[in-house]
Amino acid sequence: MIDLLDLLAFHADYADTIDSDRLEEWPGHFVEDARYVVTHVENVQEGLSAGVIYADNRAMLEDRVAALRQANIYEKQRYRHIIGLPKILEHEGERIQCRTPFVVVRIMASGETLLFASGYYEDRLVRDVSDLKIQARLVVCDSTAIDTLMVLPL
Amino acid sequence: MIDLLDLLAFHADYADTIDSDRLEEWPGHFVEDARYVVTHVENVQEGLSAGVIYADNRAMLEDRVAALRQANIYEKQRYRHIIGLPKILEHEGERIQCRTPFVVVRIMASGETLLFASGYYEDRLVRDVSDLKIQARLVVCDSTAIDTLMVLPL
Amino acid sequence: MIDLLDLLAFHADYADTIDSDRLEEWPGHFVEDARYVVTHVENVQEGLSAGVIYADNRAMLEDRVAALRQANIYEKQRYRHIIGLPKILEHEGERIQCRTPFVVVRIMASGETLLFASGYYEDRLVRDVSDLKIQARLVVCDSTAIDTLMVLPL
Repeated sequence: MIDLLDLLAFHADYADTIDSDRLEEWPGHFVEDARYVVTHVENVQEGLSAGVIYADNRAMLEDRVAALRQANIYEKQRYRHIIGLPKILEHEGERIQCRTPFVVVRIMASGETLLFASGYYEDRLVRDVSDLKIQARLVVCDSTAIDTLMVLPL
Repeated sequence: MIDLLDLLAFHADYADTIDSDRLEEWPGHFVEDARYVVTHVENVQEGLSAGVIYADNRAMLEDRVAALRQANIYEKQRYRHIIGLPKILEHEGERIQCRTPFVVVRIMASGETLLFASGYYEDRLVRDVSDLKIQARLVVCDSTAIDTLMVLPL
Repeated sequence: MIDLLDLLAFHADYADTIDSDRLEEWPGHFVEDARYVVTHVENVQEGLSAGVIYADNRAMLEDRVAALRQANIYEKQRYRHIIGLPKILEHEGERIQCRTPFVVVRIMASGETLLFASGYYEDRLVRDVSDLKIQARLVVCDSTAIDTLMVLPL
């Protein structure tokens, strides 16, 4: 059985991977044929499946990290994810669906700290040996003005 | 017995109801004769019981939601609650008192994201069948400049 | 055994002590010979142990609170800590190491609310009777532009 404590540990680990700049480990939070979509609230309300970012397997996430490293944009600014409390939508044995709010803060080289994004994760997670892995993550941003050049994994 | 995991699930559910714009379900988090007060830190320090918003039963909360829907203000902007970690103040069987920090982010139609409010909840909760319900919620905002036209449930 | 629920309760209590302005109780979260260092990400990356604030025993924290009260700066503004989900790094019986993200919001007398700081705690905690206490806390701010006059305990 997956419980709320497992979810908290999963989310803590996911955020830490990104914010500690261990991006190469980020795809490891996903199963091989995972779906990862970043979109915004209006798209979801209108039933549009197109997202700002769309990946339907882990190799695409690995490519994304490689591109990030080459573009070298990521290191010029820092991000801090604050992940809120997960709401369990459905669970059945070693699978769980949950919705979890987040905010991301961006820290510029100047030290200026600003709210970069807010929204929620809609997740299907599965137990893989001891860890939870993502089968499908829909990242729904509250703002429709998502930077299309956005390089940060959310 | 109510424990910290129950509190986390309760807060997650409460925030999700508001931020998913299912406002009609919001009063359902309260018992029928619940008290709901929104105030700010200085009022609390001076022992003033008057709040910006005062309700002492659930029907008043239902009226509030109806007014919100008619005013139609709510849909023009979005909110995202990030609820922090609850501190248990007292518990006795199926009743619990806790204090829990929060921040609320407001997302304008332009996409601009700003910090709208911060503060804490001071709650008396009770188990009602399986769910926790609010007997009394004091919402204490850190800022004294609370918008008196504020329509958002906190 | 210390588990995630113990950590959540510890962090909730710590933040509440500061944000409720019960600063005199703040050193009580530390063991007597605790180390408390506030620094920023670049210092950590460069392996510099010098911090903006450095204390290696609880008496120094008590002095700090006394100085804060005399300077009387703290009361002119309010802070709100939102502490994220802790990631357990290592645990062995009644000792645990964890890393935990945070953001701190500052509320000015005018009511203006702004993001003051973000970062993470890197903690060594130990069970002391029933409560967890800090043996070592490294507060790593994301921004290198930390106010050197910063009076707020993080």
